[in-house]
Amino acid sequence: MSNAVVRELKSLLGSDQVLVSPADRIAYSYDATYISNLPDVVVFPRDTEQVRAVLHVARHHQIPVYPRGSGTGLSGGSVPLGGIAIVMTRMNRILEIDRSSLLARVQAGVLTAHLKEAVRAHGLFYPPDPGSGRISTIGGNIAENASGPRGFHYGGTGRYVLGLQVVLADGTVLETGGRTAKNVTGYDLTSLFVGSEGTLGIVTEATLKLLPPPPPARGTLVASFPDVHSLGRAIGELAAHPARPMSLEMVDAHCLAVLGDERPPEIPQDAQGAVLCEVLDWPEALAGRLEKLADVCRREGAIATVATADPETQHRVWAMREALSPAIARIKPTKISEDATVPIGSIPDFLADLEGIRKRWEINLLVFGHAGDGNLHPNIICDERDEDEMRRVRQAIDDIFAAALKRKGTLSGEHGIGLLKRPYMRSALPPATLEAMRRLKQFFDPDNLLNPGKIFPDPSGHPAPQPAQDTRSASKSGPGSEHDPGQLKTREGRPA
Amino acid sequence: MSNAVVRELKSLLGSDQVLVSPADRIAYSYDATYISNLPDVVVFPRDTEQVRAVLHVARHHQIPVYPRGSGTGLSGGSVPLGGIAIVMTRMNRILEIDRSSLLARVQAGVLTAHLKEAVRAHGLFYPPDPGSGRISTIGGNIAENASGPRGFHYGGTGRYVLGLQVVLADGTVLETGGRTAKNVTGYDLTSLFVGSEGTLGIVTEATLKLLPPPPPARGTLVASFPDVHSLGRAIGELAAHPARPMSLEMVDAHCLAVLGDERPPEIPQDAQGAVLCEVLDWPEALAGRLEKLADVCRREGAIATVATADPETQHRVWAMREALSPAIARIKPTKISEDATVPIGSIPDFLADLEGIRKRWEINLLVFGHAGDGNLHPNIICDERDEDEMRRVRQAIDDIFAAALKRKGTLSGEHGIGLLKRPYMRSALPPATLEAMRRLKQFFDPDNLLNPGKIFPDPSGHPAPQPAQDTRSASKSGPGSEHDPGQLKTREGRPA
Repeated sequence: MSNAVVRELKSLLGSDQVLVSPADRIAYSYDATYISNLPDVVVFPRDTEQVRAVLHVARHHQIPVYPRGSGTGLSGGSVPLGGIAIVMTRMNRILEIDRSSLLARVQAGVLTAHLKEAVRAHGLFYPPDPGSGRISTIGGNIAENASGPRGFHYGGTGRYVLGLQVVLADGTVLETGGRTAKNVTGYDLTSLFVGSEGTLGIVTEATLKLLPPPPPARGTLVASFPDVHSLGRAIGELAAHPARPMSLEMVDAHCLAVLGDERPPEIPQDAQGAVLCEVLDWPEALAGRLEKLADVCRREGAIATVATADPETQHRVWAMREALSPAIARIKPTKISEDATVPIGSIPDFLADLEGIRKRWEINLLVFGHAGDGNLHPNIICDERDEDEMRRVRQAIDDIFAAALKRKGTLSGEHGIGLLKRPYMRSALPPATLEAMRRLKQFFDPDNLLNPGKIFPDPSGHPAPQPAQDTRSASKSGPGSEHDPGQLKTREGRPA
Repeated sequence: MSNAVVRELKSLLGSDQVLVSPADRIAYSYDATYISNLPDVVVFPRDTEQVRAVLHVARHHQIPVYPRGSGTGLSGGSVPLGGIAIVMTRMNRILEIDRSSLLARVQAGVLTAHLKEAVRAHGLFYPPDPGSGRISTIGGNIAENASGPRGFHYGGTGRYVLGLQVVLADGTVLETGGRTAKNVTGYDLTSLFVGSEGTLGIVTEATLKLLPPPPPARGTLVASFPDVHSLGRAIGELAAHPARPMSLEMVDAHCLAVLGDERPPEIPQDAQGAVLCEVLDWPEALAGRLEKLADVCRREGAIATVATADPETQHRVWAMREALSPAIARIKPTKISEDATVPIGSIPDFLADLEGIRKRWEINLLVFGHAGDGNLHPNIICDERDEDEMRRVRQAIDDIFAAALKRKGTLSGEHGIGLLKRPYMRSALPPATLEAMRRLKQFFDPDNLLNPGKIFPDPSGHPAPQPAQDTRSASKSGPGSEHDPGQLKTREGRPA
């Protein structure tokens, strides 16, 4: 990137909002996956006008722009491939909380946790609960349509987005939606931007729907199963029952083995998997509802069910669920978290598929996730320095997505496609569907300046990413190999 | 329309699926508004291929196509302006109910009520409950993103659409979404078609998300208020309470006056408005929850609250709500049902605005609706043969929408824009937003063949509707005057 461009950005935004040192560029080169790529410059707009100014420079010099929140994404969606990393974290103002209309208006860089706290102070509730919610931004949540365990009951981020302010590639500031709970005034542009991973426009503000808090009594059911078939059937029956819980999580036998001492006593040693359900209800209804759910599990063959309203027990059980990811990460240096999602009725078959893949490729594959939504997180624990293992891992990932698609599922329930799942888009979508998406991308971003290289399987099929002027970046080392995710630059391998 | 085109359509679809007699064309000339316009020909495709065939003919001869379900719409969205009325009611097969994955797949012409019954037989529940659900089609519900009282809790039709099959103007059969509860594999094309009123493509099939039935105990709260301010405040507090109900309806004093003998004894004679709440819960929690809601109403100044779990009382109360529309329609021959929607916190002010409009224009304006969503239905009772009254009605409608927009609301919560609200689109949306919608329309339908003349305020601003070859139809009598809804051809005035 030429010094002139950097000077122009500094004159528009201020020097402290434009970073170019190697250390600064490295700091914004990765997300929560194992890949990274250096941006040429990192900018921190403070308002919508500054986002427009950055896009003006990008257009003029035909430099790609990579929008980014806190970098907690799990698909490479915010990893820059050279160009300008536009970091939204300084646009972190909560602009308005309107209790009487049950809505909040925020800048895109507000942290999910900050918003949740702020609305709680008004006696209200912002439901989306992505796992990274403590540090993720609302803009990032919107870009990937993030969700979490309670998404089973409450839905994902998109359900709470009433309206957006988006800066388009041509500098237009587009206002979508509005402030009403229902709105059919013209096309639903809002939903088109939710989950579009920053490829159609840069979200600068969002108007979000709020709810009252859930009822105050909390209960948890832990049910343990002797095999994946009974586990899978129970998941389906729990989801179809009028007493269905707010969250319906599962952990498989391999997860339980990893937990070791952290495994809660509620799950017997011989369990081959367990479901965890959270129920929020009125005190007088809680026990009855938990019992109905426990009954369902027993009918499907549970070897143990523990229903509890005791806060300490619940804390321990859910702490186990939260400890799972870090516990897995301690086994080996490389943790690959996938996001394959299947219709809930396919879970038993899909779990069997995953067990077969584990054996076939001799890899350490563990499965947990938001079972009620069919949104499983097959995790592979490996060592990226072990070439033979990584070859098997890549084959296994291919097989995981093939299995998900065979079971009428999809590539992602909440992480997005980003860089990691691009190679599978052609198998996941009918050609006409992919082509419609590609043409929408061209329609909104004809110069392919917004997060280019993401989502679509073949960068040459739509306008090619503009190579950054500093060729150390994307143009050489960027991902793009159709069947070789191993060629992605790993974090281990980044220049530091 | 030339005989050659009719012959072509008959050869493609079969003679019994192509109607041209005046009586048949009249039968498909109107919806549930007061306007109508003759199509040149009426066709009834039986499958997706036949929809494609009709669009092929339409493209070849540049004849506009007006998709239509049961014609229960309330914005003129399915009223043909000449051209081909494509009636989807013979595509009425439920293709699949997959209990284990909590989904159904249907053709667009399936009646909402039939689907609801069919899934009930599987122990499941399809929540959307538009007022016309007994005869409306799923395709029509999707076209307008229809909803009803329980939409307050369950959301509108769009929330249940997992995937669509859509025939585009160029004949492409597009598959959007899929069969999973969560899906962020590429752009959310599904939501773009939901609520697009048949202007971007013709929905032929839908994959719909199902839920378990709600808990079995049903309770109703009726609370009566001395003025619109306390009524409006109570609506806001009920919506913000953890005990919030499944539906939160309101009726104003003028509605109560109209009901006369049908007014339930639960509402005192001096009430100036009432809310009706439905609660579905477990038996042990029902009474406590109703009492919490009654408390909220008393705190806001209710003069009477009746909370009941008695089936007969509830039946009577909700029968009153259902009787309202027909009771209103008996007063005078013309009933205009609007759909203005405001943020829930604006309801007190908006109700005051409406009372002012009623007095200013000396019209019979009654307000009821889905208050919890801010989705009010201001109804005007008038006689379209009374020119002076209709002049005042038109002014009042202008004022109603101006008030809704001033209160940061929108034109439609669930009826869509269609023909009736076109004139207000420029005031409702920022120019860039309207322009983005217009360009999307051009993108998907460059020849403007799909339901042209709907949604957009100025037909000349996007490709003009193609006049049908038989000039008796739209080109002469069609709507289009920017500020004169009175020039719409009324049902009364249609040739019969």
